[in-house]
Amino acid sequence: MNEITIHLKSLIEQKDWKNLKNQIHELSPLQISEIIEEMSKSDGILLFRLLSRQYAKETFENLSHDTQEEIINGLAQNGTKITSLLNDLEPDDRTAFFEELPGKVVQPLMQLLSEHERKIAGQLLAYPEDSVGRLMTPEYVAVKSYYTVNQALDHIRKYGHDSETLNIIYVVDDQWNLIDDIRIKEIILASPEQKISEITDNKFTALNVFDDQENAVKIFLDQDRVAMPVIDNEGTLVGIVTFDDMMDVAEEESTEDFQKFGSIKEAIVNPLKAKVSTLYKNRVVWLTALVFVNIFSGAAISNFEDVIQSAVSLVFFLPLLIGSGGNAGSQSATLMIRALATGDVVIKDWFKLIGKELIVSLILGLTMAAGVALIASFRAPEIILVVSLTMVLTVITGSLIGLILPFIFTKFKVDPATASAPLITSISDITGVLIYFSIASVYLGI
Amino acid sequence: MNEITIHLKSLIEQKDWKNLKNQIHELSPLQISEIIEEMSKSDGILLFRLLSRQYAKETFENLSHDTQEEIINGLAQNGTKITSLLNDLEPDDRTAFFEELPGKVVQPLMQLLSEHERKIAGQLLAYPEDSVGRLMTPEYVAVKSYYTVNQALDHIRKYGHDSETLNIIYVVDDQWNLIDDIRIKEIILASPEQKISEITDNKFTALNVFDDQENAVKIFLDQDRVAMPVIDNEGTLVGIVTFDDMMDVAEEESTEDFQKFGSIKEAIVNPLKAKVSTLYKNRVVWLTALVFVNIFSGAAISNFEDVIQSAVSLVFFLPLLIGSGGNAGSQSATLMIRALATGDVVIKDWFKLIGKELIVSLILGLTMAAGVALIASFRAPEIILVVSLTMVLTVITGSLIGLILPFIFTKFKVDPATASAPLITSISDITGVLIYFSIASVYLGI
Repeated sequence: MNEITIHLKSLIEQKDWKNLKNQIHELSPLQISEIIEEMSKSDGILLFRLLSRQYAKETFENLSHDTQEEIINGLAQNGTKITSLLNDLEPDDRTAFFEELPGKVVQPLMQLLSEHERKIAGQLLAYPEDSVGRLMTPEYVAVKSYYTVNQALDHIRKYGHDSETLNIIYVVDDQWNLIDDIRIKEIILASPEQKISEITDNKFTALNVFDDQENAVKIFLDQDRVAMPVIDNEGTLVGIVTFDDMMDVAEEESTEDFQKFGSIKEAIVNPLKAKVSTLYKNRVVWLTALVFVNIFSGAAISNFEDVIQSAVSLVFFLPLLIGSGGNAGSQSATLMIRALATGDVVIKDWFKLIGKELIVSLILGLTMAAGVALIASFRAPEIILVVSLTMVLTVITGSLIGLILPFIFTKFKVDPATASAPLITSISDITGVLIYFSIASVYLGI
Repeated sequence: MNEITIHLKSLIEQKDWKNLKNQIHELSPLQISEIIEEMSKSDGILLFRLLSRQYAKETFENLSHDTQEEIINGLAQNGTKITSLLNDLEPDDRTAFFEELPGKVVQPLMQLLSEHERKIAGQLLAYPEDSVGRLMTPEYVAVKSYYTVNQALDHIRKYGHDSETLNIIYVVDDQWNLIDDIRIKEIILASPEQKISEITDNKFTALNVFDDQENAVKIFLDQDRVAMPVIDNEGTLVGIVTFDDMMDVAEEESTEDFQKFGSIKEAIVNPLKAKVSTLYKNRVVWLTALVFVNIFSGAAISNFEDVIQSAVSLVFFLPLLIGSGGNAGSQSATLMIRALATGDVVIKDWFKLIGKELIVSLILGLTMAAGVALIASFRAPEIILVVSLTMVLTVITGSLIGLILPFIFTKFKVDPATASAPLITSISDITGVLIYFSIASVYLGI
């Protein structure tokens, strides 16, 4: 706990509300949110109650979802505060908040919103989860193409106060169909009498409300945009999404992919705050599933009992050989999963990639074989050929498993990151055992 | 290759330059860059030569670094074109481009820049790699606090044309020290006679030129900013960084972490375009290193030859038991690495996290032990106790290894993602083998 938090806690203990209220308003909303996260639930709620309206809104947006829920529950005894808070949040932040809450909590909270606000939240919530519709905010400024620059600026002054961003102004026709998006820079730099139609080029990229958020992130990254317009299937402008929401989506997606690759079922943003039961639930699934994959390795090994007993030195090289296959597979899998996620590789590239992987893994396998041959020359010269040949083959098969599995998952609409390191390793173990002992039994004539 | 590319290639073959030039300018710079990436080197350079100045600049920024280098080499016979291209690039994009080039190529290219542009590039290049200084652009607009809103708007109209973003205007004093940053929205919405000092609150967050880019990303994510000012140690405004560069850094960092966790040495953005030698180099290092870790597992197993021979059914459970330890370790490692990267967990939290991990992994271990006991009851009832106890202990030790290793790496200033799944698995294998056969030898009295 840092100094400020300790100081504020002492003010709470002294019930010195006046100083407390003054001092927290000298901090930034971000700092306050960090302090609330550190404090006990009841102290946090108390501090939050003291915040001014604008501060409350900004602090709330910076809190974790768990803490947001605690605050809402804590404020529930105080109808006015909760209503003003919910009404003050930006529509897209409010939607994100509602999404995390159980349905039975959402409905009463929706009742607290003003009719106007409820309509917006309702509209936003009607779109499928992970769609652009869920992220968009209707708070933008649109002008008509027949406005002059001066009229447009007047319009912006009049209607811009509620708008989340004024960096981009949208040009629509009388049916509210999107015609263009122009940077505020262009309006400011134009002469006041020019018509908006003179500074538009009618070139714009818009997202569809039903677009997947992950794809939207790729488009944002490609186009370096601050905000993008969202249109429905008729071409009508229904909202905008802003880069800050996109950065959040990008971060969430990366966390999800990364943790899936470590065989965690659903993304856990903050392990420090996650409940033990959540951690357990999201880990036990794959751990158990993988036991059944590993049974096959065990069965394969037991099957070769006579080979093992006739040349026990084979066992010394077992972890090293099957491990190398799994490691090579983990490498090719991370390369593929990440490249599929960023869009650098698409599903139709897989044939080309297999060709390349065969070459790379063959060279890798030969290098590793030279290494293991060197070790064998000291430890068990009689099986140099067996371990070297096995090394080449397990590295190649491991690499190919790691490459192919993410594509198969993608093909069947499963997240490619499901091809986790543990899954690749477990599968490579089976093929590794079979390759190793088959070669050994042929070579040793058993 | 898509239809447009094929069509453009046929125009090149027909030497129909006029139509080619017209048709490419109907595409967006992003589309053209994708087409160039698909084409042969010589066709790509030819197409690029035909682009108008503005198009050339935007297309160039969208190309991969490899292709950028090819284009520059191809244009080298044509001094004028290359000079105008380099001069047109935004300073931060140019710095990023120069950084990827070998030093002996950079110097002659720098000569092609105008004196003004060279000064900027030189300034930017003097900051350490991965510092904010490398990302910043000096193209912003600053106003004085004693300006009226009208004067400020005039100033913006006059000096704003070169500015990368006009979404945020900076307020400086006569020594160019940063006083505040205000959104263009606030200037537009203010009345024209107001003084700038009336709409500033003197609250701003600035980055230092020497700040690490990774930390800057965290601040951007926290604050949802379009651009942030960059100051030197004296508080002088030296440049700004924009969100699009930050999104690129965030994506690069994620790729790097993800691939490191799969034991790839250095990030490979696009495996489709990477050279075989690059892929080989970045994979062979860890593959070889891990062989030496795996030797210990092999040695441990060989050490227990007599135990194995007296109860061969032990071998059946070996992959399953040591595999589960490694898998649990991969899980806790991904959780830690990602949380350390996003800043949700910091190094001083590790003690708290160990306590929590002990509880979670104990419950996980008990669940898994129940599963393996069930399997053993069919396969080898005489060792139920050995395999169950081993399962609990390997899951706990594996989990702790996965948790602790990223912290140890962080402590020694090594990227925590170096605690890759293969590394965790290999280390857990050793401890797993030792635990399993030690328990077995005690229990079986060997």
